[in-house]
Order: sequence, then C-alpha cells, then structure tokens
Amino acid sequence: MIHFPGMPAPLARVVEMFSTLPGVGPKTAMRLGLNLLTRPASDTLALASALHSLHEQVSFCDCCGCFSEQGHCHFCDDPKRDRSTICVVEQPVDVLMMERGHGYRGSYHVLQGRLSPVDGMGPDQLRLVSLDRRVEQGIREMIMATSATVDGEATAHYLANRYQQGAVHVSRIARGVPEGSELEYLDEHTLSRALDQRVCWQ
Amino acid sequence: MIHFPGMPAPLARVVEMFSTLPGVGPKTAMRLGLNLLTRPASDTLALASALHSLHEQVSFCDCCGCFSEQGHCHFCDDPKRDRSTICVVEQPVDVLMMERGHGYRGSYHVLQGRLSPVDGMGPDQLRLVSLDRRVEQGIREMIMATSATVDGEATAHYLANRYQQGAVHVSRIARGVPEGSELEYLDEHTLSRALDQRVCWQ
Repeated sequence: MIHFPGMPAPLARVVEMFSTLPGVGPKTAMRLGLNLLTRPASDTLALASALHSLHEQVSFCDCCGCFSEQGHCHFCDDPKRDRSTICVVEQPVDVLMMERGHGYRGSYHVLQGRLSPVDGMGPDQLRLVSLDRRVEQGIREMIMATSATVDGEATAHYLANRYQQGAVHVSRIARGVPEGSELEYLDEHTLSRALDQRVCWQ
Repeated sequence: MIHFPGMPAPLARVVEMFSTLPGVGPKTAMRLGLNLLTRPASDTLALASALHSLHEQVSFCDCCGCFSEQGHCHFCDDPKRDRSTICVVEQPVDVLMMERGHGYRGSYHVLQGRLSPVDGMGPDQLRLVSLDRRVEQGIREMIMATSATVDGEATAHYLANRYQQGAVHVSRIARGVPEGSELEYLDEHTLSRALDQRVCWQ
C-alpha cells in the first residue's frame, strides 16, 4: 500500500479496499478513489447502494448452481429449456459466457469448482449430490464444459467415469483453433490437438 | 456495455457502475463485480460503507483547498509549516504527490483547475480570491507547481504576472531529466530543456 501523508482517512479506506480487487494496484485504486471523490456524490452513493444489495439479492440456484435472484434461476425457470441435456461448468460465470453464444437450449450444472488436490478440492467439494439427483431423474446427454487445463480435464474425466452408464451420453465441447485466430500466433499444443481431432469436411 | 443473458440485475448494476470508472472497461468491470460477489459479503459491505461515507466525510480546506476532514486541513493545522511559502498546484491530489517527497515544509494552495479557454476555465474559475487574500496577508515566496503542459504553463505565467510584485518572490519547480531515467528513452523536448536550464556543478 502506497502511503500518502495527509490523505484523508475515508479516502485512504476506499483506496485500500479497491486495491484488494483483482488487477487493481495501489495506483489504479488511488485513481478510482479520486474519481469517485471528484464526481457527483450521487454517483458514489449509487455504487455504494448497488454493492450493499449485491450479496443480499444475488444467490445461487438450488438446482443448477447458477446465479439467481430467487430460489430458482433464469434457466431452470424457462420451460423452453431442454432438461434432458446438462452442460457441466465450473463456475456460475461460465454459464453467462456459454449463453453469449445464443445457441445452446439445454440446462446447466455448476460444480462450484474443479478437482484440484493441491487446493484441497476433491469430489466432495463439488456440487455432485445435486447432479447425481438430476441424473437419477433421467437425462439424455451430459456435456463437459470444464476448463481446458489439467485440473479441468481431470474433473471432466472423473465425471465421465461417474456418469457414463445406462442411457446417459457424455460429450465434451470441442478443442481447437479459436475463431478469428491466425495459426502463426497459436501455441503448439492447441495446434497439434486441432490436427489430431480434425473433423470430416462437410 | 456487454450484455450477458441471464445475469442477475443486482450484479449487472454493479458491473455497469464500475465500467464508468476511468480505465475500467466492461470486461474488467465484470471481473470486479464477480470478485465482490464471490468473496465474503462482509468485504463487499465494507466497501459499500466506505464509499457511502466518502463524500460525506471528505471535503476541501477553506484556506488552501486541499482535502480535509474538518474545515481546515492537515497542512493548514500544522504549526510547523512555513506559511510564508506557498506552493501552488492544480488539484488536491497534487498535494499528496508533493508530500511524498517529504522535503517541503511550506504551505500549499490548490487552484482546483488550470487556465484552459477550450474548457471554459478562466481566472474566475480558479481559487484565486483566497490566494489573493493569502498574498495580502504577506508571503515571502510562491512556488509554481502546475503541470508541465501548455495549459499548466499558461496558468503559471498568469499567476507569476499577477503576484510578482513587492516582496513576493515567484519561483517554479525544476524541469529536466526525471530521476532514474535513461537519456535513450527521453523525448527531445525534455532533453533540450534540461540542457538549456543546466545548473552549475557544485
């Protein structure tokens, strides 16, 4: 924390709290604090009030684990969603990212983490009891959309072993060259996997 | 504003407000909002409360225009400060920056702006009435510490003309090569001014 002699304590408090946010260093925190101090008080009070009600008003869906404002979420409440297809993701924010594609009409299940023995995350720390229950109620397909990292991959493998039985078809979102990217700037792992998993020209 | 279908309104509100802060784009705002949602509620409430009291508790010193928590500021209240020397700066934050050097023991005067005809800033928009009064009460030296820009320079010239009379000695903080910089990376204007204003080897 950069110390500024003569800085008023209320400003110092705001700056210190901002600097605990991800990607916000002491200088950026100072800039944000000063900006909020010099713009109309109503703006700063509006932000304060929005932050005040954030935790109070946003919770997680009992069923799928997505963000919700009541008990159930936007997705579980939507009768047009296909409940026999579950896309499994790690975090609630991943659901928002998936939805930006506008193509998927199934439901979601948020694990609230991924297997990571180093961080003490085992199967018991993931939201699997509710997933077991949804699978028992009968689903057709489970799509793994965990992250493309070692831990994300391990999590997908674990879930595939756990649920690939009977009528449940387990799939995984494709890995390969991202849209709009040039081969020149791609890493070799992405490229070699894209080559390995090439698909038929249609 | 990036739209995320299914994002709860209270989170969207926080994200939207964050994205109005300087240097915070929609993606960073989203990251900050999610961070505040996933960390303990007490952290978010503490930030909300700090922001709530920011404008209420921080004001500007009646005398010098610095940040203050009561009527007068840290610097005007300090009996050890030399009141016969006034360092003139543009913004309250400039005082905090000057104080980081720990060398200056005089007083300050904040203009709350600089002359800028394009932005409608003339002498009447600056805090000059209170500066006139302080000069009348008798000062020894006025140090110009306005910014090293065209507008900052014009402001310093205007003030020098206005106050350089009688016993008042007007000076200006030095321009030149910043500490720790290599000549290779400096712009030509800084370098040519540093050469013009070279000082005797002591």
